[in-house]
Amino acid sequence: MNIALNISYDGTQYNGWQIQPNAKTVQEELECALKKVFGKEVKTTASGRTDAKVSAICQVVNFECETNIPADKIMYLLNDNLPLDIRIIKSYLVCDDFNARYSAKKKTYEYYFYFGENENAFFSKTNAFFKGNLNIENMQKACEYLVGEHDFTSFCASNTEVVSKIRTIYSAKIVEIDELNNIYKLQISGNGFLYNMVRIIMGTLINVGYGKYAPEYIGKIIELKDRKYAGPTVQALGLVLKNVEY
Amino acid sequence: MNIALNISYDGTQYNGWQIQPNAKTVQEELECALKKVFGKEVKTTASGRTDAKVSAICQVVNFECETNIPADKIMYLLNDNLPLDIRIIKSYLVCDDFNARYSAKKKTYEYYFYFGENENAFFSKTNAFFKGNLNIENMQKACEYLVGEHDFTSFCASNTEVVSKIRTIYSAKIVEIDELNNIYKLQISGNGFLYNMVRIIMGTLINVGYGKYAPEYIGKIIELKDRKYAGPTVQALGLVLKNVEY
Repeated sequence: MNIALNISYDGTQYNGWQIQPNAKTVQEELECALKKVFGKEVKTTASGRTDAKVSAICQVVNFECETNIPADKIMYLLNDNLPLDIRIIKSYLVCDDFNARYSAKKKTYEYYFYFGENENAFFSKTNAFFKGNLNIENMQKACEYLVGEHDFTSFCASNTEVVSKIRTIYSAKIVEIDELNNIYKLQISGNGFLYNMVRIIMGTLINVGYGKYAPEYIGKIIELKDRKYAGPTVQALGLVLKNVEY
Repeated sequence: MNIALNISYDGTQYNGWQIQPNAKTVQEELECALKKVFGKEVKTTASGRTDAKVSAICQVVNFECETNIPADKIMYLLNDNLPLDIRIIKSYLVCDDFNARYSAKKKTYEYYFYFGENENAFFSKTNAFFKGNLNIENMQKACEYLVGEHDFTSFCASNTEVVSKIRTIYSAKIVEIDELNNIYKLQISGNGFLYNMVRIIMGTLINVGYGKYAPEYIGKIIELKDRKYAGPTVQALGLVLKNVEY
């Protein structure tokens, strides 16, 4: 049976999704819980890795397992064996050829941030902090240049080896969360994202917010196809995988 | 010199504000940082204690200290000596008779919560979770009965010894944060709050949201002056001291 899970996690205490030596990861916690529930090793596939400290509102995972437990009940057994910062939202049967990674059609990420004169420990719990003033209107305009099919070489960590850096962004916008406290999020959907792509896009938008780049310059950065023209890679805390569509 | 601090903290890892044996508290961390900066013991007074796991967007604290450091620079020295989940927002001189506790005129608390079928680890980082569906409109109506000067005996932990349980609530409302994900906060301002008062008010509003109480019943609960008629004391995570006015 091919079973899928919708899984949420607060990534703060984890070294990302993927199992690796000497580091606590979300995948390891999940496979550990699966072993307790099914009494054997179960290998999982996620829609994609998330980096250290990155959270997920809804990551999708699948695994092969023969069991008599109804698929929709598996989530309760797993939640009983998982730490509270990892919660399964849904468990369900999927067809044999479903693969959480390769079947994904659309992914949405969110980047939570706030700005102001001084950092606030409460807001920094979930949001990245940027010192000073950000022009949100200009950041909103800059987002429009990201939408469409583009070569995103400028927005990809330069040490990455992928064949094609062409991706399609379906939508990108800044959403207000708490205007009084200057809390916002970038919400961005696409058919796929390159390594560090959302964090580099965010760093570039922050430069627009600070007035270092005009909004139109985002189009130019895309054209230039060189990482050095885009803004910095912002911190991982603030980045959240919102959902994956199939 | 009498110096005041506006201080923010993520209370998740602390056993509340007040210094106590064998427990990590915010006051202890702050007094430890003050000792490093001034080279001697400094005693602090906060606007009020916050309980274990309760956070603050802006708590106010004052202390007496003779120093040549300009008051507005003290915050930087303290932040260098504080953990990242405690951040000073502002440091400033206040007049000799200013007392963060007794001079307070108005306090505002917020209670962050969300509801739905299943808990989400990302949202549970800062918000209390309530399973099922909540009628926010009825909770909003119920809030109106809290406003004004009332005897809040029904909304006070029964083991408390305070002379008067009369307090004035200036405003109480449910504020939408993220409608799509059913995330809201209660925002409540008053001249003072009894022990566990905001958490019991929230528990009572949740019962209204579930349809267990009609909104008007809040008025009746106040009249009855008996803790047993109000709802449960909800969990501390979700409660945040928003600000204090003098």
